[in-house]
Amino acid sequence: MTIKVTVWGENVHEKTNKVVARIYPDGMHNCIAAGLNEDQDIEATSVTLQDKEHGLTEEKLENTDVLIWWGHAAHGDVADEIVDRVQKRVLEGMGLLVLHSGHYAKIFKRLMGTTCSLKWREAGERERLWVVNPGHPIVQGVGDYIELPHTEMYGEPFAVPNPDEVIFISAFEGGEVFRSGLVYRRGNGKIFYFRPGHETYPIYYDDKVKRVLKNAVKWSQPEGSRWIDSCPCVPADQAPNPIEVKGEGLHKPGEEGFK
Amino acid sequence: MTIKVTVWGENVHEKTNKVVARIYPDGMHNCIAAGLNEDQDIEATSVTLQDKEHGLTEEKLENTDVLIWWGHAAHGDVADEIVDRVQKRVLEGMGLLVLHSGHYAKIFKRLMGTTCSLKWREAGERERLWVVNPGHPIVQGVGDYIELPHTEMYGEPFAVPNPDEVIFISAFEGGEVFRSGLVYRRGNGKIFYFRPGHETYPIYYDDKVKRVLKNAVKWSQPEGSRWIDSCPCVPADQAPNPIEVKGEGLHKPGEEGFK
Amino acid sequence: MTIKVTVWGENVHEKTNKVVARIYPDGMHNCIAAGLNEDQDIEATSVTLQDKEHGLTEEKLENTDVLIWWGHAAHGDVADEIVDRVQKRVLEGMGLLVLHSGHYAKIFKRLMGTTCSLKWREAGERERLWVVNPGHPIVQGVGDYIELPHTEMYGEPFAVPNPDEVIFISAFEGGEVFRSGLVYRRGNGKIFYFRPGHETYPIYYDDKVKRVLKNAVKWSQPEGSRWIDSCPCVPADQAPNPIEVKGEGLHKPGEEGFK
Amino acid sequence: MTIKVTVWGENVHEKTNKVVARIYPDGMHNCIAAGLNEDQDIEATSVTLQDKEHGLTEEKLENTDVLIWWGHAAHGDVADEIVDRVQKRVLEGMGLLVLHSGHYAKIFKRLMGTTCSLKWREAGERERLWVVNPGHPIVQGVGDYIELPHTEMYGEPFAVPNPDEVIFISAFEGGEVFRSGLVYRRGNGKIFYFRPGHETYPIYYDDKVKRVLKNAVKWSQPEGSRWIDSCPCVPADQAPNPIEVKGEGLHKPGEEGFK
Repeated sequence: MTIKVTVWGENVHEKTNKVVARIYPDGMHNCIAAGLNEDQDIEATSVTLQDKEHGLTEEKLENTDVLIWWGHAAHGDVADEIVDRVQKRVLEGMGLLVLHSGHYAKIFKRLMGTTCSLKWREAGERERLWVVNPGHPIVQGVGDYIELPHTEMYGEPFAVPNPDEVIFISAFEGGEVFRSGLVYRRGNGKIFYFRPGHETYPIYYDDKVKRVLKNAVKWSQPEGSRWIDSCPCVPADQAPNPIEVKGEGLHKPGEEGFK
Repeated sequence: MTIKVTVWGENVHEKTNKVVARIYPDGMHNCIAAGLNEDQDIEATSVTLQDKEHGLTEEKLENTDVLIWWGHAAHGDVADEIVDRVQKRVLEGMGLLVLHSGHYAKIFKRLMGTTCSLKWREAGERERLWVVNPGHPIVQGVGDYIELPHTEMYGEPFAVPNPDEVIFISAFEGGEVFRSGLVYRRGNGKIFYFRPGHETYPIYYDDKVKRVLKNAVKWSQPEGSRWIDSCPCVPADQAPNPIEVKGEGLHKPGEEGFK
Repeated sequence: MTIKVTVWGENVHEKTNKVVARIYPDGMHNCIAAGLNEDQDIEATSVTLQDKEHGLTEEKLENTDVLIWWGHAAHGDVADEIVDRVQKRVLEGMGLLVLHSGHYAKIFKRLMGTTCSLKWREAGERERLWVVNPGHPIVQGVGDYIELPHTEMYGEPFAVPNPDEVIFISAFEGGEVFRSGLVYRRGNGKIFYFRPGHETYPIYYDDKVKRVLKNAVKWSQPEGSRWIDSCPCVPADQAPNPIEVKGEGLHKPGEEGFK
Repeated sequence: MTIKVTVWGENVHEKTNKVVARIYPDGMHNCIAAGLNEDQDIEATSVTLQDKEHGLTEEKLENTDVLIWWGHAAHGDVADEIVDRVQKRVLEGMGLLVLHSGHYAKIFKRLMGTTCSLKWREAGERERLWVVNPGHPIVQGVGDYIELPHTEMYGEPFAVPNPDEVIFISAFEGGEVFRSGLVYRRGNGKIFYFRPGHETYPIYYDDKVKRVLKNAVKWSQPEGSRWIDSCPCVPADQAPNPIEVKGEGLHKPGEEGFK
């Protein structure tokens, strides 16, 4: 069955920076979507910050199996209401791939609960992303490592919770290291953080980077059922064991809990 | 060395509900602090929602090793700025104990990244909190289980990330079960969620509940050093390996990263 | 594609205990396999302790996607060599479902690294297995809980490493609780421990228990590729960065590492 | 209170290899113990493979808070009975530091449940161990990284279960990376794997390496109480809820469970 992917692009530097505009004339989001659409099991479309509701309407999210997030300069412009909506869908089971500078996106910080900070340097240096587990579905077809000739450096400490598994570790020409592929499960959503993607280099045209994104889309698609959580009150007469109501309560019958 | 504990109390039901006022005439926060102060290694004070900055000024938090949080009816009244401040201190290493209905506190949802919802029922039923690991520091002195004769029921599913360890599992008279003691590490802060504490019952006078809180304060006190994370740019001439700056960048030298 | 399942049965009590023989005249392993074969995507066969190499020849394991393990009285009779072989296949990606008293099977203790002990009682009491996450693939179709009218009790503490997720928590008529469905990943193998299955009750005829086993087979089938790990020496002239061999070594070129 | 440390040394290469004998004339174990004894809170002694019961008698282990393990050429000569004994003490709460080639020690593979394999190369190349979390107790006093001018390379994939936290990541001169400091909790024992230590270089004289070992000893010392787990049968008349024995059982009253 076709996996429906929505690629969310900030689409700011493509308009304001000549280097980025030259490398990604149609925007990074469209380049990423085009790469995914090479795979016939994937149907990827793109939306941007500038679209109504940033393109992430209830209906669009209902029809998204996996969301990909690329943002950098305008994290603060993303409406909290949309972040709430995306978080809800991830917890229900939608996959989420967060790319590069998306480590500081509101949705990523929201799901991690930490600062998500790191060290960085722009020197156009070489990066090698080493595969930590050659049997993982996400790394199939990439060999021992991915080599990117020119990129921005991200260095440890990367202030995130301990992941379920480290998929890639990067070594940079300047000497630093970084956990550059991390997987998490939050609610029933599978989350993959993937470091490559600095906008001043043609990273999303790289075959191995495209391979990882295709693999990650397949790995993160929803499984199980969609569960809407709701904090329900279970009336005493519906308890599995018969119980008699005792003592004093705060809530009247049928009243909702405090949030 | 003395461990400095701040007990944060919402202090709303104590003023508005006769049952709660009768059981906790000085407020739940003061009852909890008094229980902790029985231990000479602990120095506990209390603050409330109604205090200036909810009592959680920069200075107060600087002088807090472990923060205890009890809230229920007024989670929405806690200022986001104070939540930011508490989160920052937890990530730096301050311990955090979240009690009962605090599962829906902004600070707990912030650190978990999930909804933190559950099932509930007010029927004054019996709860037994079973110890899952008798060797854990938090459960010393409580035996096989804690029995509370009358309490509110919380039932699974409890929508939180997988904890580092389940410390207690509760069985309720009505039949439901709940993971009622959970530990997490976020940044360098140790977090303990502990379920007991419904305000219409004298739970915080219970000897075993007091014992768990004392143990948890000791377990969650800061260790290691305080690390202020900051997303620093590492200049190319400070890289461990000599590198030549290549390619095109977005940032001017010394410029801060986007947040 | 069809998932190939091998059900391993100890097949001792079926021969030596009249109660067990009456309930499972063809052996528990065949009852479990028959339940799985109701699903057209699954092709389950069974083998037993008494078979040559316990039925787990290299060839059989090569052709197994998911192995199910039921043992109780004769854990000690399983040859270590066969345990090594099963462990290797799990780490390579074969799914493993360990049932009931299999908590003490050599292969489970091997993969956990802990004692895997618990409390127990045979009193034919009622058990309810509560679903901890209604959205998980393993619990689809079972509702809020599974109720088994008569079973053996297993109680906490269950001495296992913290699981990746708790899927079920049981409450017993006598009052105890138990984490009765746990998932782990070791290497690329997905492991599911599932408590139900005491041999003196017709547990494996229960529709919800059968549903969970079918779901778990699908959840635990291999994904990604098979990776044979081997501790290879990387010659200096194959390092990604050119390096000159310096200093003094222990090993001669091409020599294997110590094990 | 003084922390009692036992340093276990294989003590083979010190006797058979001239390079190792020159660098560690008193054996690596004594060098490691001497480094720890610089700290007045630590009292370290050493034992070796060649000692009776490999120096790890019941009495010695009873009096050990933290055990340090260095082995390489003779993993297979360690008696399984001693491995059982060490495992039991770790699960009860004894700290365990496993060094360098100890990744293949029986006790480490036992506690991990995986192969613990990796890539390696002896070329005397430079290693930098980067600190992943500057606030962790284990890394206090080491700065951003530890640099070792000459060492053996270990490279990913390192076939271990996902750790509780990655403490160090190494970058090697030849380009490879490795998770070189990992923490686990198994039972109530804290485990730290620390990569440095190739015997043909004077690694254990390095001030930062010594600092890490001192820190790790303090971090891994026992906390909580010692729990001896035993798989007890809970008689029906001792269940918290009154229950009537029903159905048919396998065990006679008072009989032990199968192991």
